[in-house]
Amino acid sequence: MKLTRDKTVLIVGLGLMGGSYAIALKKKGYRVGGIAHRQESLDWALENGIVDFGAASPDPETVRQGDILVFCLYPHIFIDWMRKYGDLIKPGALLTDVTGVKSPVVYEIQAMLRSDLEFVAAHPMTGREVYGVKNSTDRSFPEANYIVTPTDKNTRENIEAVKKLGEEMGFRRISELTPEKHDEMIAFLSQLAHVIAVTLMTCNELEGLENFTGNSFRDLTRIAHINEDMWTELFFLNREPLLREMDLFAAQFDRLRKALRDRDADTMKAIMRRSTERRDAFDDIY
Amino acid sequence: MKLTRDKTVLIVGLGLMGGSYAIALKKKGYRVGGIAHRQESLDWALENGIVDFGAASPDPETVRQGDILVFCLYPHIFIDWMRKYGDLIKPGALLTDVTGVKSPVVYEIQAMLRSDLEFVAAHPMTGREVYGVKNSTDRSFPEANYIVTPTDKNTRENIEAVKKLGEEMGFRRISELTPEKHDEMIAFLSQLAHVIAVTLMTCNELEGLENFTGNSFRDLTRIAHINEDMWTELFFLNREPLLREMDLFAAQFDRLRKALRDRDADTMKAIMRRSTERRDAFDDIY
Repeated sequence: MKLTRDKTVLIVGLGLMGGSYAIALKKKGYRVGGIAHRQESLDWALENGIVDFGAASPDPETVRQGDILVFCLYPHIFIDWMRKYGDLIKPGALLTDVTGVKSPVVYEIQAMLRSDLEFVAAHPMTGREVYGVKNSTDRSFPEANYIVTPTDKNTRENIEAVKKLGEEMGFRRISELTPEKHDEMIAFLSQLAHVIAVTLMTCNELEGLENFTGNSFRDLTRIAHINEDMWTELFFLNREPLLREMDLFAAQFDRLRKALRDRDADTMKAIMRRSTERRDAFDDIY
Repeated sequence: MKLTRDKTVLIVGLGLMGGSYAIALKKKGYRVGGIAHRQESLDWALENGIVDFGAASPDPETVRQGDILVFCLYPHIFIDWMRKYGDLIKPGALLTDVTGVKSPVVYEIQAMLRSDLEFVAAHPMTGREVYGVKNSTDRSFPEANYIVTPTDKNTRENIEAVKKLGEEMGFRRISELTPEKHDEMIAFLSQLAHVIAVTLMTCNELEGLENFTGNSFRDLTRIAHINEDMWTELFFLNREPLLREMDLFAAQFDRLRKALRDRDADTMKAIMRRSTERRDAFDDIY
């Protein structure tokens, strides 16, 4: 499929990310529909012009309108939805998603897919510490990465269409990774970061800390306000890569602890110099 | 001493923090001088109106002009400076500082102090990932905490004067803690945060990460660009409290690791709920 602006995009799962996609795509002229879980979310999205049409259930008439379907659901709900309602999808439609973990989802969906459909997985690397369609916004997209994770089941044309979808929404950098490489990378860059923030926020029961914090602590714990259902599911789906990254972190943390215990200034400073050097690579880009 | 705007404030150590204090205090009408380590820093500060007068050495005529002296030096240099040049200070002057660790500095300085002088320690909880007087700015002060750590050697009048100095510079919240309580708190809120950022930045040698990072990772590693000499000194000075906080962190990290390994969703979610709850206390304030 070629991605053109006369296409109808159907968002399945009208939450924070689904609503944000809808906002970005409507700006470019796409007709956008939504399948919500709750009537209230759908009503709000319709009243506020987030979507052009929609339903609060997998209504066959509504589902069939999507040329492109974007699944914005928890992984197990996405897989479940496809099992139950996959037959309702328009012949020849292109499917994509926003799921934060890829290997455990991509292959399972592709294995069950009707032969006239194609699923090209994608992960927009952005999020907020709030939920629901009412908090939708595309303002973080221009600073965020959008990663497409094709497999050998995908055609070049549809991979390009899903990449172009990311471009249309204004993402900063569009790239391709294998599902496995994506999951390894996300275990380190995103999941480990969330584990650390949660650990820091809960490891000390001191009260009244908020009266004394500097910016460092606030920055490190911003993501400690966390959706426990979604992140527990994502962690468990990516268990092996995340355990490996946690072990790398724990080993390095222990190295710093020993340097401190032994007053080993050389080791401490060498690690800090390496840290500054690696962090500089980020500043060069952002 | 009553803090009035006809006083002359001498900044000893014209770096990032010294320069930032100078900027904030000159705005309020104080006469501000500086003792720099390098002629270049002093010249730049004079040319740019950061200070009204100064010297690039502990020149007796310059030192003697300070009614209030603010020491913005590494801890060991501060102690060394007082040993060598303490006699040059004007009789009756009030001394304060910006040192990030208190117990190992406050008592040593107070023990060696001339009886006509008083040292009331303070810690402005703000900083940047850049250095030197040329990067000075007071723009972060309105969001930052300023903590005074008095001891029984201090008079109420001078404690109030140093607190008022923080108010004059526009700090958000001015509070008092004992040096010991300060160091425990800073070990957790600031030093542990820096250890974590450095660990995260150096625990995985993957290259090209900067192409895929989301905001979470960037926020967590902002402070991983670190001055290795200053922070190694501060860590070593606060070794025991920091080791305790690192152990608390490592124990909780291990609890999360076990929950992941055992697919123990109840524990994982309970810790995440607690995390969200504790993080909310911060959002209520900031």
